Amino acid sequence: MSIRGYFITLEGGEGTGKSTLIAGLAEALQSRNIDVVQTREPGGTVLAERIRSLALNPPENQTWSPLAHALLMNTARDDHLQKLIRPALERGRWELCDRFSDSTRAYQSVDGLRMETLIMLEKMVLAQTSPDLTLVLDGDPASLINRRETRGTRDVFEDKDLDFHTHIRDTFLNIANGAPERCAIINAEQSPGQVLAQALNVIDDRLSGA
Amino acid sequence: MSIRGYFITLEGGEGTGKSTLIAGLAEALQSRNIDVVQTREPGGTVLAERIRSLALNPPENQTWSPLAHALLMNTARDDHLQKLIRPALERGRWELCDRFSDSTRAYQSVDGLRMETLIMLEKMVLAQTSPDLTLVLDGDPASLINRRETRGTRDVFEDKDLDFHTHIRDTFLNIANGAPERCAIINAEQSPGQVLAQALNVIDDRLSGA
Repeated sequence: MSIRGYFITLEGGEGTGKSTLIAGLAEALQSRNIDVVQTREPGGTVLAERIRSLALNPPENQTWSPLAHALLMNTARDDHLQKLIRPALERGRWELCDRFSDSTRAYQSVDGLRMETLIMLEKMVLAQTSPDLTLVLDGDPASLINRRETRGTRDVFEDKDLDFHTHIRDTFLNIANGAPERCAIINAEQSPGQVLAQALNVIDDRLSGA
Repeated sequence: MSIRGYFITLEGGEGTGKSTLIAGLAEALQSRNIDVVQTREPGGTVLAERIRSLALNPPENQTWSPLAHALLMNTARDDHLQKLIRPALERGRWELCDRFSDSTRAYQSVDGLRMETLIMLEKMVLAQTSPDLTLVLDGDPASLINRRETRGTRDVFEDKDLDFHTHIRDTFLNIANGAPERCAIINAEQSPGQVLAQALNVIDDRLSGA
């Protein structure tokens, strides 16, 4: 006998503190004896990590079209859902996933790919498995840029300009405002402790058994 | 000043003689001073060949879901269209492509993926570029199996049973009968010379300037 676990996704632009929050949430939930799986996208399984690498670091200075990139993100997501997320939820485990389908909507729509195309692909791949709760970390990109610059790691998305980061922020806010039953907006400009406290309040309010 | 080239695809099950026909067609068309590009799917470009390898030979004995496989085939096709097929057609070259979107419909529908899903993906990726002519090589799988067994190479599709090959044949025939303006059915049980002659007749009938 088992009860299905909850599927919680964390979304937001660069420097919004998703990694810090996911670590804090995992610790807080585990201290309540909840069995938590931390994962990320793109990635999370052997094949999805292969796709991640091919998508983010294509060989020989090749580039993917925006549509090809969106297809790859969805291929990786399908594998992640099939082999990690769904089996874990069925065993009653909670999933904390750093980025998921909303990131594909935000990042792949930057290059002119139509949102309807992205939503069509999303429906194909998610099928019956949508997040139970999505925490959208939101803050002013200009304020958060300092946080980005003091972090060590950089990736393909982090060298973009302010317009890019503003598009990402606006898309996440539109998604959250369009699906308030699933999404909660968390103020990313607070201290990490305040961010964690706000996220735990949302979880306690919305997910029974938390 | 240039006239757009023609995009010709060859489709059909294993052992129907696509490789022999494509070589014969290339030679015949080149002898008419037509500039011909021979290519294949999945593959044809650097990134599409990477996808081919990942799709057909996944690492560590992993398997892709039917949907993931279809997404990968379409990702490879997008790259092939963007970087090889469209630019070549625009320069007036003729493309002879060994397998294309009809193979995705035939092979990816075997495992229960809905044809509507496959057609939705196909429309996204093909956009304005459909084949001008598709030669569907058709023959009785039971008769053609001897040809398969005397050939050296085997791949993931070739170890399947007769039901599988019958599904593939039936799907190609359904596609051809549903799009007679684009497709021509070629009897694959003829000699290679007869197959080539029938294919050239179709080209002469349907494509002006051939």
